[in-house]
Amino acid sequence: MNYDAAFTAALDDLRDEGNYRTFAELERHRGAFPRATRHGHDGADEVTVWCSNDYLGMGQHPEVLSAMHAAIDGAGAGAGGTRNISGNTRYHAELEAELADLHGKPAALVFTSGYVANWATLGTLAARLPGCIVLSDAKNHASMIEGIRHSGAEKRIWAHNELADLEAQLAAVPHGRPKIVAFESVYSMDGDIAPIAEICDLAERYGALTYLDEVHAVGLYGPRGAGIAEARGLMHRVDVIEGTLGKAFGVMGGYIAASAPLVDFVRSFASGFIFTTALPPSVAAGALAAIRHLKTSAAERAGQQARVAELRSRLDAIGVPHLKNCSHIVPVMVGDPVKCRYISDLLLDEFGIYIQPINYPTVPRGTERLRITPSPVHTDADMDRLVAALGELWARCQLARRPMAAQ
Amino acid sequence: MNYDAAFTAALDDLRDEGNYRTFAELERHRGAFPRATRHGHDGADEVTVWCSNDYLGMGQHPEVLSAMHAAIDGAGAGAGGTRNISGNTRYHAELEAELADLHGKPAALVFTSGYVANWATLGTLAARLPGCIVLSDAKNHASMIEGIRHSGAEKRIWAHNELADLEAQLAAVPHGRPKIVAFESVYSMDGDIAPIAEICDLAERYGALTYLDEVHAVGLYGPRGAGIAEARGLMHRVDVIEGTLGKAFGVMGGYIAASAPLVDFVRSFASGFIFTTALPPSVAAGALAAIRHLKTSAAERAGQQARVAELRSRLDAIGVPHLKNCSHIVPVMVGDPVKCRYISDLLLDEFGIYIQPINYPTVPRGTERLRITPSPVHTDADMDRLVAALGELWARCQLARRPMAAQ
Repeated sequence: MNYDAAFTAALDDLRDEGNYRTFAELERHRGAFPRATRHGHDGADEVTVWCSNDYLGMGQHPEVLSAMHAAIDGAGAGAGGTRNISGNTRYHAELEAELADLHGKPAALVFTSGYVANWATLGTLAARLPGCIVLSDAKNHASMIEGIRHSGAEKRIWAHNELADLEAQLAAVPHGRPKIVAFESVYSMDGDIAPIAEICDLAERYGALTYLDEVHAVGLYGPRGAGIAEARGLMHRVDVIEGTLGKAFGVMGGYIAASAPLVDFVRSFASGFIFTTALPPSVAAGALAAIRHLKTSAAERAGQQARVAELRSRLDAIGVPHLKNCSHIVPVMVGDPVKCRYISDLLLDEFGIYIQPINYPTVPRGTERLRITPSPVHTDADMDRLVAALGELWARCQLARRPMAAQ
Repeated sequence: MNYDAAFTAALDDLRDEGNYRTFAELERHRGAFPRATRHGHDGADEVTVWCSNDYLGMGQHPEVLSAMHAAIDGAGAGAGGTRNISGNTRYHAELEAELADLHGKPAALVFTSGYVANWATLGTLAARLPGCIVLSDAKNHASMIEGIRHSGAEKRIWAHNELADLEAQLAAVPHGRPKIVAFESVYSMDGDIAPIAEICDLAERYGALTYLDEVHAVGLYGPRGAGIAEARGLMHRVDVIEGTLGKAFGVMGGYIAASAPLVDFVRSFASGFIFTTALPPSVAAGALAAIRHLKTSAAERAGQQARVAELRSRLDAIGVPHLKNCSHIVPVMVGDPVKCRYISDLLLDEFGIYIQPINYPTVPRGTERLRITPSPVHTDADMDRLVAALGELWARCQLARRPMAAQ
């Protein structure tokens, strides 16, 4: 058995499909984001990043960095163990208390990543509630899908954001069986937003737990940055809110906020929580500082929304097609994997603009796109260069233009 | 359906079994480890930690901390995205090159944790090698078990470290089917070490891939701290070496080192690698500094081994029973969950010594223990206090003593 030959053949298939990924090697510079140095090709170039999930630039915020420095000076590098075996620190306890408060829930639990938060929580709840059925939105993130699969529970997929389909499927579940309705608020690749109130209505009617992934919303929406559920006054109606510390909060890690028994249950039974080293104190401290800052400062959110609105209107003005949505994510549609990668390469090589192509399997074939995430730290000049570059490439590559606001 | 009532009932069961876990809330102090402040009970107490997986105290090493500070000053807090979408930095690339070099492999890949490294790698390899069968040591870590389960591949468990059983099971696998032999070098709870050479002999004879978890060995064994396989001159015979950045290297994260096609395969197909935010630059930089330091400095390893030998001989002298093994892990056997927790509580409350009790399900019932991990930063005075405290508690709790070296 030649294992390497098998791996090589699979990688060759990926290349043939145009889906082999190469990573751009970047070096961000504190205080200069979205500027970064690009390494690992012919020399280093300065580029402007337009596809980061550090949505508000909190990854370079002085309060965040200073909290991280202080934690390193205070407590050292790592946690030194799992939460149960010597790795539970004051930093973790304070972070969880802050997250519970942010979401108006009695308790919260921090994981090493949002991926692990989804995987471990859904995996544990669905496996350990006897007879549980999970009703999962068709566009849920890979981490939720893997968690549900891992649980071994019965899964029913409902059409993306379709209330009628969700209701039909809820009605078909035998009465008395535990049910979890799992969905996201802002969907990462299309930027569309779930009808949370109506989903909660249905869940209530049919006695289902609601599990809401807000990773692309926490920090960004609501008066205190708790997400879409906060913005819509719905936090108390959602049973589990899952979020990340690695996007708008600028550092790394994931969490859930929920009732005390539910959180304690996951804490006590989730393998992916129990048997892993805790986050470093500096990571917990940095995230805590970002959350606290964004609880009271709305300037970053307002700045982002203004930038997003401006980009949309300028793309409309030159007819570059983008998916309309109510979020901060601007998907510029290309619709072809080879062209999508080609445009991304030209943007990087000729214009110093870094926007990673999003191809299958992250999005369905035929909907390949450039996913642009404007932030409050992008300047007017950055915006001018981006719009000019896209306009030029759309002409050069003979890509379809849309009349303003057609899509 | 009252979900919280179901969670509460399950937690009550756990309490009745004596297996409900409460986390000691600690605050480590840079430069003072293994000293820590204990919070969250009646006031704060100073304690000495004897159960950390920061085995060599690298979590407070000046080179590690200074690398973390420099990365925060240079690049900011988080990576800002997945490795594919803007989160791939120079820090990650340098760390992976260093890890590949450490293990004498062509390539390495970093994950957010050792748990995720095991889960994602075994999950991906076993799922995507058609017809794959995984032969898993009976005492493998939860993360390996979950990864194998997740793959959906056929699994066969061989008796812990039993070569005859492994061979019988390998011989029974139909010829030509892909096989992975998955095992650890140092087993965390017993501290025993696998017969790596003989396992590689068998794997070679039967055409199996070898997957070796060295998380409790990297940094600690071998001339450059690459682990048991290095110490025994066997790195070239193991196909995949998996390690952690969160124990002896003092920070957080996990990795694999292997052939270039295997690493590229996992990089390209593993959901748990692809769809998650990359490690913060400061975490990658801190781990890199620890690895580089331990590649050339043997002082920490020698210091640890001296401390371990001393603790063993002093326990023998007072007849406190501990499992004999060839590693740095000293399991002091209690054999009862209630007594084990009670002794741990007394050590903490009366003696300021923190050793978390290890109960079921982490270890089999009847083998409950205190798992002690002496480090080079424990002083003679620390050792005196520990041995005196254990001696006193063994008398007070009327626990069995063993004649010297009987177990």
